[in-house]
Amino acid sequence: MFEDMIKSIDETLAKLLKPVYPERIYDAMGYSVMAGGKRLRPLLMLLAYKAVGGDENDTRIMKTACALEMIHTYSLIHDDLPAMDNDDLRRGKPTCHKQFDEATAILAGDGLLTYAFQVMLEDETGKYEPKYTRAAFELARLSGMSGMLVGQAVDVESEGRQIDAKTLDFIHKNKTGGLIKAALMAGGIIGGADEKTIKLLEEIGEDVGLAFQIKDDILDVTSTTEVLGKPVFSDEKNQKVTYVSLYGLEKAQSDYAALSESAIKKAEKLGEKAKPLCDYLKSLTDRIK
Amino acid sequence: MFEDMIKSIDETLAKLLKPVYPERIYDAMGYSVMAGGKRLRPLLMLLAYKAVGGDENDTRIMKTACALEMIHTYSLIHDDLPAMDNDDLRRGKPTCHKQFDEATAILAGDGLLTYAFQVMLEDETGKYEPKYTRAAFELARLSGMSGMLVGQAVDVESEGRQIDAKTLDFIHKNKTGGLIKAALMAGGIIGGADEKTIKLLEEIGEDVGLAFQIKDDILDVTSTTEVLGKPVFSDEKNQKVTYVSLYGLEKAQSDYAALSESAIKKAEKLGEKAKPLCDYLKSLTDRIK
Repeated sequence: MFEDMIKSIDETLAKLLKPVYPERIYDAMGYSVMAGGKRLRPLLMLLAYKAVGGDENDTRIMKTACALEMIHTYSLIHDDLPAMDNDDLRRGKPTCHKQFDEATAILAGDGLLTYAFQVMLEDETGKYEPKYTRAAFELARLSGMSGMLVGQAVDVESEGRQIDAKTLDFIHKNKTGGLIKAALMAGGIIGGADEKTIKLLEEIGEDVGLAFQIKDDILDVTSTTEVLGKPVFSDEKNQKVTYVSLYGLEKAQSDYAALSESAIKKAEKLGEKAKPLCDYLKSLTDRIK
Repeated sequence: MFEDMIKSIDETLAKLLKPVYPERIYDAMGYSVMAGGKRLRPLLMLLAYKAVGGDENDTRIMKTACALEMIHTYSLIHDDLPAMDNDDLRRGKPTCHKQFDEATAILAGDGLLTYAFQVMLEDETGKYEPKYTRAAFELARLSGMSGMLVGQAVDVESEGRQIDAKTLDFIHKNKTGGLIKAALMAGGIIGGADEKTIKLLEEIGEDVGLAFQIKDDILDVTSTTEVLGKPVFSDEKNQKVTYVSLYGLEKAQSDYAALSESAIKKAEKLGEKAKPLCDYLKSLTDRIK
């Protein structure tokens, strides 16, 4: 079932990013978006939407989910740049600035971020229903100054420095947690959920976001470059403080398990329609990359 | 009168960008935004809004105007980066990556772009009126894949190459014209203008955008570094094809005059309330930087 949803996400992304003039910038945007991620964020949005009983005939939820994936991809492209993490590989393929060039990679990131808002806000009917606008606002907030962007800013500032637990928590909650929270909230908002349910989805997003980051930190010291498609021990190499380096592998693993369980328990409260969301959250606990 | 409006724009920008944790990224964003531009785009938006009889008590038009200035500033920060134009000076001051560092400049640009949408879409009343969403959609479109971003992409691709008139026209219409058109259209949309008036504002934006770019090309060969606050003859140095290099200074000057007159004539059609807009457009014809 998730394979079907991933296929739909990939097809919609390919359609939205079909190259027109000037082709090179579309090629660079498409190259990074179609490089084959897990589609975690759009899947969470679609599953949250289903969980609250969202209308199956609404075509805009899929577009919004794809817009979120574009925002995620822009952040990866810019994070990989020489002035940032200076990574040559991403998902086992050359990073955008390696495949194209640095100027194109900067513009491809800018393009994906801007296009995401165009895709989310476009309404051919001219009705501009409030729920879509509110979802786009939450995405702006949580990908920006109350989420991903400030998390990344503190992460960049902290490189090579010993940071405390509070700072690491800020980075994780915002850098990784921001978009995951946004995915679940936006799915609920567009699906027509009430405020209490949106709040519950936000809390699930907080658990999943932190769990996801802890797992990333664990995999960086327990997996292989072949499986991950990117270098392992990169945090150590970059002298990065991580959940594992701060709390040890054992506590990281038990906290990960506790957060995952907490998220699933909350999702179960949403009832029968949330079963696919619960199943997906369970499948995440086994992920190896 | 324009000084009062510029003061209000600057005050609102300063308020919106008041540093909170993590301060450094706000500092970088604020540094570039407050570096003292002409505020051309927000002014055009506010004047278009007045021209169509927009409600004087609406506080969101000023925020939208400031969001547009943030989008403009993000594009300057990224254009100045070493991988792009590699400029050390902007408005007579060190560029963002010179004053801070490259990673911070990339993030400051990303932050301004994302925050612009947050500011435009935020609605504390929860009403999310369609006109604001439509204006934000137009800004996304015209700053992205149907405007500034693709114009910049073609400009980057064209550097050091002999390009034809059609390509130069594409660059000018999109790179410079996109946001100027967006300014006038968004002012009209939020001011409650009818479709015919919005179309007229779009046409004024096209004239002003092209005129503005031609003037920039003219000033690059007729002004001084002291007056402009940035190096002159930079287009020649970067082997850039410009309106002046393609058509000669004389034709550039007469086309500039004709476009300016056309824009003013169209604005006069909007009636009495458009007088400040007309006055501002007239003042632009005398600009020396």
